[in-house]
Amino acid sequence: MEWIVRVNTATGEIVKKKATPEEMTWGGRLLIAKVLLREVPPTCEVLGRRNKLILASGLLADAPVTTTGKLSIGGKSPLTRGVKESNVGGYAGKKLARLGIRALIFEDIPSEPRSGVLFISNDKISLVDMPGLKGLLVSETIKALRAEYGSDVGIICIGPAGEMLMYGAGIAVTDGRDVQVRYAARGGLGALMGSKGVKAIVINDEGAPRPKYADRDLLLKAARELVQDLLADPKTENRNTYGTPAILALANQVGLLPTRNFSSGSFEHADIICGEYVRKLIHERGGEGRSGTPCVAGCAIMCSNVFPNKDGKAIVASIQYENIVLLGSNLGIGDIDDIAELNDLCNQVGVDAIEIGAAIGVAMEAGVIPFGDAEGAKDLIRQIGKGTYLGRILGHGAIATGRILGVRRVPAVKGQAIPAYDPRALKGNGVTYVTSPMGADHTAGNAFETLKYINPIGREKQVESSRRLQIRAALLDSLGLCLFTRPPFIRKPHLLRDLLRGCYGDTIDVENPKRIGEETLETEREFNRRAGVSEEFYPIPEFMEDEPLPPTNSVFDIPLEEMQKIWDIKLPPTDL
Amino acid sequence: MEWIVRVNTATGEIVKKKATPEEMTWGGRLLIAKVLLREVPPTCEVLGRRNKLILASGLLADAPVTTTGKLSIGGKSPLTRGVKESNVGGYAGKKLARLGIRALIFEDIPSEPRSGVLFISNDKISLVDMPGLKGLLVSETIKALRAEYGSDVGIICIGPAGEMLMYGAGIAVTDGRDVQVRYAARGGLGALMGSKGVKAIVINDEGAPRPKYADRDLLLKAARELVQDLLADPKTENRNTYGTPAILALANQVGLLPTRNFSSGSFEHADIICGEYVRKLIHERGGEGRSGTPCVAGCAIMCSNVFPNKDGKAIVASIQYENIVLLGSNLGIGDIDDIAELNDLCNQVGVDAIEIGAAIGVAMEAGVIPFGDAEGAKDLIRQIGKGTYLGRILGHGAIATGRILGVRRVPAVKGQAIPAYDPRALKGNGVTYVTSPMGADHTAGNAFETLKYINPIGREKQVESSRRLQIRAALLDSLGLCLFTRPPFIRKPHLLRDLLRGCYGDTIDVENPKRIGEETLETEREFNRRAGVSEEFYPIPEFMEDEPLPPTNSVFDIPLEEMQKIWDIKLPPTDL
Repeated sequence: MEWIVRVNTATGEIVKKKATPEEMTWGGRLLIAKVLLREVPPTCEVLGRRNKLILASGLLADAPVTTTGKLSIGGKSPLTRGVKESNVGGYAGKKLARLGIRALIFEDIPSEPRSGVLFISNDKISLVDMPGLKGLLVSETIKALRAEYGSDVGIICIGPAGEMLMYGAGIAVTDGRDVQVRYAARGGLGALMGSKGVKAIVINDEGAPRPKYADRDLLLKAARELVQDLLADPKTENRNTYGTPAILALANQVGLLPTRNFSSGSFEHADIICGEYVRKLIHERGGEGRSGTPCVAGCAIMCSNVFPNKDGKAIVASIQYENIVLLGSNLGIGDIDDIAELNDLCNQVGVDAIEIGAAIGVAMEAGVIPFGDAEGAKDLIRQIGKGTYLGRILGHGAIATGRILGVRRVPAVKGQAIPAYDPRALKGNGVTYVTSPMGADHTAGNAFETLKYINPIGREKQVESSRRLQIRAALLDSLGLCLFTRPPFIRKPHLLRDLLRGCYGDTIDVENPKRIGEETLETEREFNRRAGVSEEFYPIPEFMEDEPLPPTNSVFDIPLEEMQKIWDIKLPPTDL
Repeated sequence: MEWIVRVNTATGEIVKKKATPEEMTWGGRLLIAKVLLREVPPTCEVLGRRNKLILASGLLADAPVTTTGKLSIGGKSPLTRGVKESNVGGYAGKKLARLGIRALIFEDIPSEPRSGVLFISNDKISLVDMPGLKGLLVSETIKALRAEYGSDVGIICIGPAGEMLMYGAGIAVTDGRDVQVRYAARGGLGALMGSKGVKAIVINDEGAPRPKYADRDLLLKAARELVQDLLADPKTENRNTYGTPAILALANQVGLLPTRNFSSGSFEHADIICGEYVRKLIHERGGEGRSGTPCVAGCAIMCSNVFPNKDGKAIVASIQYENIVLLGSNLGIGDIDDIAELNDLCNQVGVDAIEIGAAIGVAMEAGVIPFGDAEGAKDLIRQIGKGTYLGRILGHGAIATGRILGVRRVPAVKGQAIPAYDPRALKGNGVTYVTSPMGADHTAGNAFETLKYINPIGREKQVESSRRLQIRAALLDSLGLCLFTRPPFIRKPHLLRDLLRGCYGDTIDVENPKRIGEETLETEREFNRRAGVSEEFYPIPEFMEDEPLPPTNSVFDIPLEEMQKIWDIKLPPTDL
């Protein structure tokens, strides 16, 4: 039995209702899209009464499958004004799933700002005010909640940026030991949570009922096979060893590495911010440093890390490719310790490091501080946390910063900053940024993996490839699985069927799991169409059409008409 | 013979080309819509290479017809992201028309910011750099240009806000004696001019050829009849005596007067900011004070004024209803001298007083300064001129201010601040704000004149009435006539035909002049549709649906579906 829990943040009323059979066929990203389309007026004010903040377990919830338990968080995005799903590791998602909660939906807004905490346990759900949490940094918030609720609860919270309704704010989720802070970072969902007057969600899964599966043996068999295949994949070892920064050297070599506000695709200090260097430092410095750590319990890949300073004390966990690039090369900063500190500051004030990195790059172009000024950049992030006027501008992301400071070169599509893959040198990602209902989002269909068989600066095959990648991403996001589980599923399509059948038996149509991804995209697309944020209105930034990107000197040149054909591309069910 | 002049602001190239016969049938607002739809990609970056700034004479240009010579200025609007036409009195428009220039189109953008001045005379057009003008206030700019070009030229310029690319910036036009500064205020066109690196346009019409008319006698006869009818209309006398502030007392009585960030429809100090009081002060104080002055030469209505301080020295000219409301009651400020100073400050830094008044109201709601704090408000406008971070936020208008400061109650539709008629208590204006291609703009179809026969808080007849008003406004804006010439045209439809036939003979289809208004709206609507800013995506702010407006306690409740029917309403040709 699974539950839909609704919290009315205006009245405080909490309603726990059994999910309908149809709702039981939705999970994660698909569930968010379905609820948005069913319940939220597409043109509503993003921080107003009619928008909803939705937390959803994936279809595989907390099943004993490696990497499951990613928590999807969504709503109408402050930044894109369209549908948004951002999923996150950490331990809270699994705990929510264990309590049988398929979706947690925050509705309406309180009449006055408040610091609400939603406490969820097996026998009780309550919304309490904790005014003492107001304005606290993320680590301070976690500490205060631990003191109140103990060390075993899962915690989801926002920092001061979310409380101040900044569109660049994300939602933080802790791991089991509060070492890592994971983020549902993109799209401004932290501001949406802030608008609901919810500072934190605390989940205690003690006494949760044992999950029931339709065919436990089938499930376990498929789960084992998935782990074996993952472990046999050389990519897994690479990820475990170097984490996501593994790809930085290649990104630099290919020339797609955003550098100095997307004015170059390669960075002269790439060798001292790349994955190999990060790993070397972690191991040399020792102390609290770690590589190969998991972000959800039971992950077989374990691509996270704990990055220590020279004295072995943790600066930030985990440090990832995207953040190193947006806060590093994109700002002309080539010192990995500075980058780690910048990343931690983002985590503390509660903002998306990608969006804020891009915003600071724009501010540097405006001359607020020079490129390469790491101390200046740290001060800017602190200003976000304090809510100074400049901090508020930056906290609203790249587009707001460009507009207010009068800068034309703003790397953003559909309201959202472009992540660490310049679409001029990886055109497949340009297609994804423009056509994905998520806007500029590398997790919505990342063409980086196609480098070995598609010319990244050619126009050929980019649209079809993006289509395949987008469907796959939407599928995995709806299951609650990490995107890095892709390879086995591509090689063995029966695995997905068996996992779903093991959990749900015949209650979900599992013959073609890919359909879940397609349905997710179509639902999201329809919401966006009604919201006025279809791809025809939000092109690639003009400077990326006009300004060749060194060293390839490529421009983005895939016409909109060609990209729009993506919606008509039919791929065979097995072509994942 | 009439000319289309194109100035490429990237290369400095200037091309003067004869208007085609088709282009000769376009004027003012219609011409801007046609050029935009033909030449500007609807989704282009508003301050980028592909947008164009267009200045266009009306169809009646500088014909000897009362109130003609209003200059239409347009482009893709920074604020609405759709089509924008803002027209303005002053003397420059007539001079441009006298030189036979039907349209002046600025294309592309310079690679570096510059302070360009376009000098236009009968035998020469040149774009020169005048770095000394950089950052000058509007009055300083005019003074510097007078020193260079003499006292007879017409001047069009921007203030520092436009140079800093603020979306709330307007474009200033002087009258003959530099007493009045008139504004093409709305939609952020000052930022568009700034993006082109054009600080000013100077027009010398010495030696301009005598205009040729198809039937001079017919033209003069109709023009005389128009003047006689206008003078016989009691509204004209009222406007001449009190100016546009004439309507403030009634607006307050009806309860549609925006007060304290649109939280009330009446203001306790209405009696000391109303038209009667303004006139009384002007006459008591004497000195430079004037009422009943013209904004274009040859106007028979003369609704402008010069508002003096206690010593008889001019504070601002002209002080208008909209500005008194947005900078007065909307800010809780009940001192007309303060309001006049605030208005002058807006004129000096070069911003739309409506947009900035609304933005300051939002900032007051955010607690930046309290309602009623006139000195604080003056400081905020000075900060816009200086480009402080707070000033930049405010200078970008109401929506940017609400977003950055975290305020939900933002009175704006389609990106643009709502003018001095709360749509809850004048629902016809709500229909216009939502459905007009111009967004929230009272000049695009103002239902205030329907008060005597349509219940302003009822839902009946509002849509049809807005349709009629919108067509009429679009027609007059395309002719270059003041909206206040409406009454005679309604009573005597032949007048419009005769004026057009007198000027153009058979080269324009004049049988149904109303068609010009309809065609303007359809062209604009199509541009907006392609730009993604149709009415279905930009509703009335939610607080106006949820929050009853005292004293009528009315909410805005006309459904979108009903408003969208506006496009299908057919009115008889004579029903102007």
